[in-house]
Amino acid sequence: MSTALVILAAGKGTRMNSDLPKVLHPIAQVPMLEHAMAAGRALMPEKTIVVAGHEAEKVRAAVADIDEDATVVLQTEQLGTGHAVLQAREALAGFTGDVVVLYGDTPFVSEDTLERMIAARSRADLVILGFNAADPGRYGRLVMEGDSLERIVEFKDADDATRAISFCNSGLMACDAETMFRLLDKVGNANASGEYYLTDLVEIARGEDLRVTAVSCDEAETLGVNSRADLAAADAVFQQRARAELLDIGVTLMAPETVYLAFDTIIGRDSVIEPNVVFGPGVTVESGALIRAFSHLEGCHVSRGAKVGPYARLRPGAELAEDTHIGNFVEIKNAEIAEGAKVNHLSYIGDASVGEKTNIGAGTITCNYDGVMKHRTEIGRGAFIGSNTLLVAPVKVGHEALTATGAVITKNVEDGALAIARTEQTNKPGRARKLMDMLRAKKARQTKG
Amino acid sequence: MSTALVILAAGKGTRMNSDLPKVLHPIAQVPMLEHAMAAGRALMPEKTIVVAGHEAEKVRAAVADIDEDATVVLQTEQLGTGHAVLQAREALAGFTGDVVVLYGDTPFVSEDTLERMIAARSRADLVILGFNAADPGRYGRLVMEGDSLERIVEFKDADDATRAISFCNSGLMACDAETMFRLLDKVGNANASGEYYLTDLVEIARGEDLRVTAVSCDEAETLGVNSRADLAAADAVFQQRARAELLDIGVTLMAPETVYLAFDTIIGRDSVIEPNVVFGPGVTVESGALIRAFSHLEGCHVSRGAKVGPYARLRPGAELAEDTHIGNFVEIKNAEIAEGAKVNHLSYIGDASVGEKTNIGAGTITCNYDGVMKHRTEIGRGAFIGSNTLLVAPVKVGHEALTATGAVITKNVEDGALAIARTEQTNKPGRARKLMDMLRAKKARQTKG
Amino acid sequence: MSTALVILAAGKGTRMNSDLPKVLHPIAQVPMLEHAMAAGRALMPEKTIVVAGHEAEKVRAAVADIDEDATVVLQTEQLGTGHAVLQAREALAGFTGDVVVLYGDTPFVSEDTLERMIAARSRADLVILGFNAADPGRYGRLVMEGDSLERIVEFKDADDATRAISFCNSGLMACDAETMFRLLDKVGNANASGEYYLTDLVEIARGEDLRVTAVSCDEAETLGVNSRADLAAADAVFQQRARAELLDIGVTLMAPETVYLAFDTIIGRDSVIEPNVVFGPGVTVESGALIRAFSHLEGCHVSRGAKVGPYARLRPGAELAEDTHIGNFVEIKNAEIAEGAKVNHLSYIGDASVGEKTNIGAGTITCNYDGVMKHRTEIGRGAFIGSNTLLVAPVKVGHEALTATGAVITKNVEDGALAIARTEQTNKPGRARKLMDMLRAKKARQTKG
Repeated sequence: MSTALVILAAGKGTRMNSDLPKVLHPIAQVPMLEHAMAAGRALMPEKTIVVAGHEAEKVRAAVADIDEDATVVLQTEQLGTGHAVLQAREALAGFTGDVVVLYGDTPFVSEDTLERMIAARSRADLVILGFNAADPGRYGRLVMEGDSLERIVEFKDADDATRAISFCNSGLMACDAETMFRLLDKVGNANASGEYYLTDLVEIARGEDLRVTAVSCDEAETLGVNSRADLAAADAVFQQRARAELLDIGVTLMAPETVYLAFDTIIGRDSVIEPNVVFGPGVTVESGALIRAFSHLEGCHVSRGAKVGPYARLRPGAELAEDTHIGNFVEIKNAEIAEGAKVNHLSYIGDASVGEKTNIGAGTITCNYDGVMKHRTEIGRGAFIGSNTLLVAPVKVGHEALTATGAVITKNVEDGALAIARTEQTNKPGRARKLMDMLRAKKARQTKG
Repeated sequence: MSTALVILAAGKGTRMNSDLPKVLHPIAQVPMLEHAMAAGRALMPEKTIVVAGHEAEKVRAAVADIDEDATVVLQTEQLGTGHAVLQAREALAGFTGDVVVLYGDTPFVSEDTLERMIAARSRADLVILGFNAADPGRYGRLVMEGDSLERIVEFKDADDATRAISFCNSGLMACDAETMFRLLDKVGNANASGEYYLTDLVEIARGEDLRVTAVSCDEAETLGVNSRADLAAADAVFQQRARAELLDIGVTLMAPETVYLAFDTIIGRDSVIEPNVVFGPGVTVESGALIRAFSHLEGCHVSRGAKVGPYARLRPGAELAEDTHIGNFVEIKNAEIAEGAKVNHLSYIGDASVGEKTNIGAGTITCNYDGVMKHRTEIGRGAFIGSNTLLVAPVKVGHEALTATGAVITKNVEDGALAIARTEQTNKPGRARKLMDMLRAKKARQTKG
Repeated sequence: MSTALVILAAGKGTRMNSDLPKVLHPIAQVPMLEHAMAAGRALMPEKTIVVAGHEAEKVRAAVADIDEDATVVLQTEQLGTGHAVLQAREALAGFTGDVVVLYGDTPFVSEDTLERMIAARSRADLVILGFNAADPGRYGRLVMEGDSLERIVEFKDADDATRAISFCNSGLMACDAETMFRLLDKVGNANASGEYYLTDLVEIARGEDLRVTAVSCDEAETLGVNSRADLAAADAVFQQRARAELLDIGVTLMAPETVYLAFDTIIGRDSVIEPNVVFGPGVTVESGALIRAFSHLEGCHVSRGAKVGPYARLRPGAELAEDTHIGNFVEIKNAEIAEGAKVNHLSYIGDASVGEKTNIGAGTITCNYDGVMKHRTEIGRGAFIGSNTLLVAPVKVGHEALTATGAVITKNVEDGALAIARTEQTNKPGRARKLMDMLRAKKARQTKG
């Protein structure tokens, strides 16, 4: 049967104390909403509906980035979770499969759990996701009788026996679309806060003698984010899990707790990651690469045998071929560095290609911006770019060409040619001492004066 | 009633294993003594007396930096805490208010606690600060009878019943000046170590039927520092608390445990701090700024919308206006960067001003030091400083002016002018290959030889 | 009596998921095998035999690096620990002292423990190293009767009473060579895995009425490494211990958990290490130095009063004399920096010497590589190297000499001389505005087109 996701993302998140809507706050460098959506994608949903409310336009823009096929619907008033799901009804007109309700601020539900919820639909009309809480506190309790979920009891309404139950309500549920919307119409708001609660579906379903069950997941999957401290804690949970996965597949993290990973970081077996490395989104490191301390990578690809850092910054579009070396205080942006090439010290290589085995001297800069447009620099194979060469793009340096130390290269250099642009050195004997004496005397006068 | 602080700061701190007196070892980038003094300032004391002993001149200099109104008195012999407080008598001659005794190596006592100690003076002549210890160990025990502190019993003198008490003595106390010094005169040194103990005031006061009480604070406030490990632990306590406060006010710390804060770091709501950022003293970051990974800030101001880093170093006097960008491997010192200006790569901007929307090319250096004196560089608005421009200060570059790549600018550049200083490029066809062949042959000869 | 070490290092370490043999994976920047070998060296062994198997040639090469006197023998088939030790027989022919069996993947056994094992040989023929396990789990249990080790019982063979024993087998043992090899000849492989177990020596020795005893060590010493997660955990254990030792001897680590130390890092009393510093192998920092945040040091020496960083990279052969300053985004390699000299910003100093009190301007580069060979740069005392000076090695700059901003220095500069190599600046009034207008118009055409 086909599946649709309804993801609730309308809340303001007052405790976040932010102008940014809660679900857009990032965990591991992507909006927390994206984590929930990514888990949901495992169900290969026919439709994905995000219910936005607070700062809806920002949410709409973010959703478009994450999944262009997703639909954003508006909940203009915050009248509760039941009301929120109802806003998806029109967008799901004609859809007859299962609806799974997720939460944009519950980022860690696993694909496996969602699949088990769908599987449980074979034995129940309505499936609730529960978890065994280490400290059930004020969560709603799930009262089971065998496989049947009898009712959900809010903490404040629970007697001591019910409070002793540790199986709690996560809020996630699955139900076929027709039933869900039919039941939602019956949900009322005669309660203290005047809201329509999605949770009420359980009681209504039971009243119709529908089968209701609960599936259990690990408590960590239901972790919700309500404050910046929660956000940091959620990020830490993500990091710990992602680091453990890398260790498992045979990556060395010398000090795992100092390596910050992004949502989608891929690192191959037998790569070594030194302490204090930060991965932004979109990084792939092949097997057998070395990422040294204090490196920062985003949107780049590092091939086998490459050595990066310390203090290397790889920005989006950096493509390092095998056995390349990128050294300290070097920035690479939108540039292909071919096999065996080296950029070892204090350089900026942007909008460029560097050929095989070419050596880029210390202090080299590709001057890619003229104040209005960006231009490309192309350097051939086996070339030797002298220290502090300034390559004024657009410009090409040929294979096995050489640029002299400190040259400003504004014209193309042919294969095998040597490009020079330098003023001859003149030494003025004794002049340094005179000059310094003069400056010191001047300072003495100023200090006195 | 007016208040005076007496802060004991005479100890050597043998276990610190240091030439620096213990109270000057830093926590969160300021001497630990400053933490205690800062808490005390909440009482708006009429007088602040620091009792120095070991390396007193270093302590005196530090105190002058922290609070120029504070008085440093000397305890030339280390004869105990009671003797230490007595050294303040002369400096407090004529003072008739309350004296609060603090310790330079007990940095975390809170302002609230000190205020409660003063408040308790309304119901007691002598107020002792106690805490409920999780593990009372060898602390002195406070024996209470209702609100009355009956006595302090040292661990070694305590019977089992007394050892079972978890309410312990912190050493801090408050008393009116006249009573305190009168009682101190009665303290003897007939004990194993031959020292005058401040703690004896309790027994003496009780013997005079004075009212003695104890106020309770969180154990963490009484954390004392006796070793480098304690120092690191105290710093960690500070960091954890300061990070939590930032999260509370709506700052995102992507990995809070990797952000090192100073005593006085101020960061506004909705600013985002990436992993691995270090704040030195004197930093203010406005709301909505982004501080990227591996940045280091001290003595600087970052405005709304500014983006800093990764690998940006802002030194004292760096003033970033709104929407400025400071990029990687860039050092800014004593320089105003106006709204919308960018310094994105590998640059040193010191003793300078950069105008609105001006773009500073990669590798730009303000040559501010001539070997004797420092000079200023002034760059106008809308200017474009070409890559690797060397600005030999003092020098001015006008509005909308342009400097060519690699230019050494020694003369002022007028508004709208283009400054060039470059030698024409010459290409020598085939010369690179010949040169490399020659070098390789030379190396082969040397290797053989 | 003389001692020989037999170190078992033949295992593949399947769970490491690596092409590198397990014992070569690094802890604190050296192969874990080196940790075990270093502990063993405390016994001043007459012979050190490493038994290699999986990827033996890599192990052989590593051992040669660690201890050129060690012998590597091959275990071509993996037939168990007893079989492994037997491979050392030939290499120990004629040796009559004690053999201590260590494991390449048990890096943390202490020198003290090994000495206690040897000492215990005076009262027993065979000495086993045991430990009291917090969670004995599936370890083999050591059944003692007084000082006599009666037998080792594998977990699967143990009854409940034996399982209740927490004293467990580490696998390490000591025995005189003749007895050990004689007993090993009696070890059979009639067990489920068909392997020869070293552990069987205990039963065989007891059968001969030999005296067998066990020495106890801290459980942490027996920590074994079987996966990358174990490797990271072992590294963390090392770091924690090494940091605590530095704190004890009077080094300030502002945030100890962010400082990564190498196996052999030496730091003197009253040095201060800021957060986020990484030490590679071979670093010595004298007393009273300051290593600022984000610095990376390997193979270098830092003298008293030196200030390093933030963002300083000291590479092998960097020798900093007293009161030197190495600043941000500076790389020093194979270079002596004499007393009071400064290299404060964005520089690369490699294969060089810098004289006393010389100031190296921002952006200075020693061009030490001509594409084929490396050459040296020598700078005298009291010199002033202007910003962005490019020193094309081999080249010498004399005492109190001065190089002008941006000069490319290809010829030696005499003492006290001023070296200039610069093209005069020309200002073209109004040209900047025209140029930018032209570029903007071009872009507009392109965007339209």
